[in-house]
Amino acid sequence: MRIKDKSKEESVIAATIKLVNKIGFASSSVAKIAKEANVSPATIYIYYKNKEDLLTSTYIDIKKQLSNYMLTGFDSSKPIRDIFEHVWQNTFRFIANNKELFYFTEQFANSPYSDKIDKAEIDMYFEPLFNLLQKGIEQKIIKNVHYEILGAFIFYPVLILANNRLCKTIKLTDKTIKSSFTLAWDAIKL
Amino acid sequence: MRIKDKSKEESVIAATIKLVNKIGFASSSVAKIAKEANVSPATIYIYYKNKEDLLTSTYIDIKKQLSNYMLTGFDSSKPIRDIFEHVWQNTFRFIANNKELFYFTEQFANSPYSDKIDKAEIDMYFEPLFNLLQKGIEQKIIKNVHYEILGAFIFYPVLILANNRLCKTIKLTDKTIKSSFTLAWDAIKL
Repeated sequence: MRIKDKSKEESVIAATIKLVNKIGFASSSVAKIAKEANVSPATIYIYYKNKEDLLTSTYIDIKKQLSNYMLTGFDSSKPIRDIFEHVWQNTFRFIANNKELFYFTEQFANSPYSDKIDKAEIDMYFEPLFNLLQKGIEQKIIKNVHYEILGAFIFYPVLILANNRLCKTIKLTDKTIKSSFTLAWDAIKL
Repeated sequence: MRIKDKSKEESVIAATIKLVNKIGFASSSVAKIAKEANVSPATIYIYYKNKEDLLTSTYIDIKKQLSNYMLTGFDSSKPIRDIFEHVWQNTFRFIANNKELFYFTEQFANSPYSDKIDKAEIDMYFEPLFNLLQKGIEQKIIKNVHYEILGAFIFYPVLILANNRLCKTIKLTDKTIKSSFTLAWDAIKL
């Protein structure tokens, strides 16, 4: 039995993201990804069952990284507004520094592979944020609407604004990040 | 010289959307799209210079359809809030009935082809909406922030909420469409 190598696994994930962003999901074969990662296809099959497993695992890995970064410095003793503002800033910074991960996830989320993802597993990584929304609703600070509606205003606009293929003219400075948070908060607050 | 045939052009656009959603941008060749549309590749070259032209034209065509639908019943004499609520409902209805167009545009917007689009041409179709935002800012009804920030809250959340690959559990009823508009309006209003 071959032993799994963390750095090799990371270089396979990185190669997957790079290749998919360049040539798309359909054309990205395990063989081509192996070549890009400078490993043999057999090595990839130590870690992943097949192409679908590799692509969905890459997506889950990115979501895990994102949630870790969003939750850095999460302090549940602070006011709910301040916690969300902190998360908002974390998210901007993560996306600004990891554009290529987001080209992958956005394409993935709109591809048929997306149906293969266990949404409950992804949601688990973001649980502290869902709990915070719930707490805000109970304390009558946040509007009592479906959490996917809240998410469309408190999480997704960051993805839109930081995506310079969608938002080409805006410059993301501390000031615009702060003022865009005001809109997000005004949307969800009661 | 061959004469252009509107219905043939539409069937080529429909075939492009269908094939790209199925097998992705990279694999969708002009030959395969021609086969899907039941026309000869030569016919496609009457209308489009090459694959890139076909893909970007399809994107622009969808954006034109979307703007037409969003602006149906646009009545600039009404209160600004009411106009945006009407546009919000139009958008939901259009997306709900044309999911496949949105899988295409969302993938397209996150693909390298997106860089080939003349953003000014797209913006032109949505000009009445930008003008309305501007009017709202001047009348101190809408926050005076960059129009891309306003757009991330008054236009994009509809795309997120109506995309059932991103929002899997919410049911889009008249009630949820109405309550989600409240959040959008609260976000942008002064």
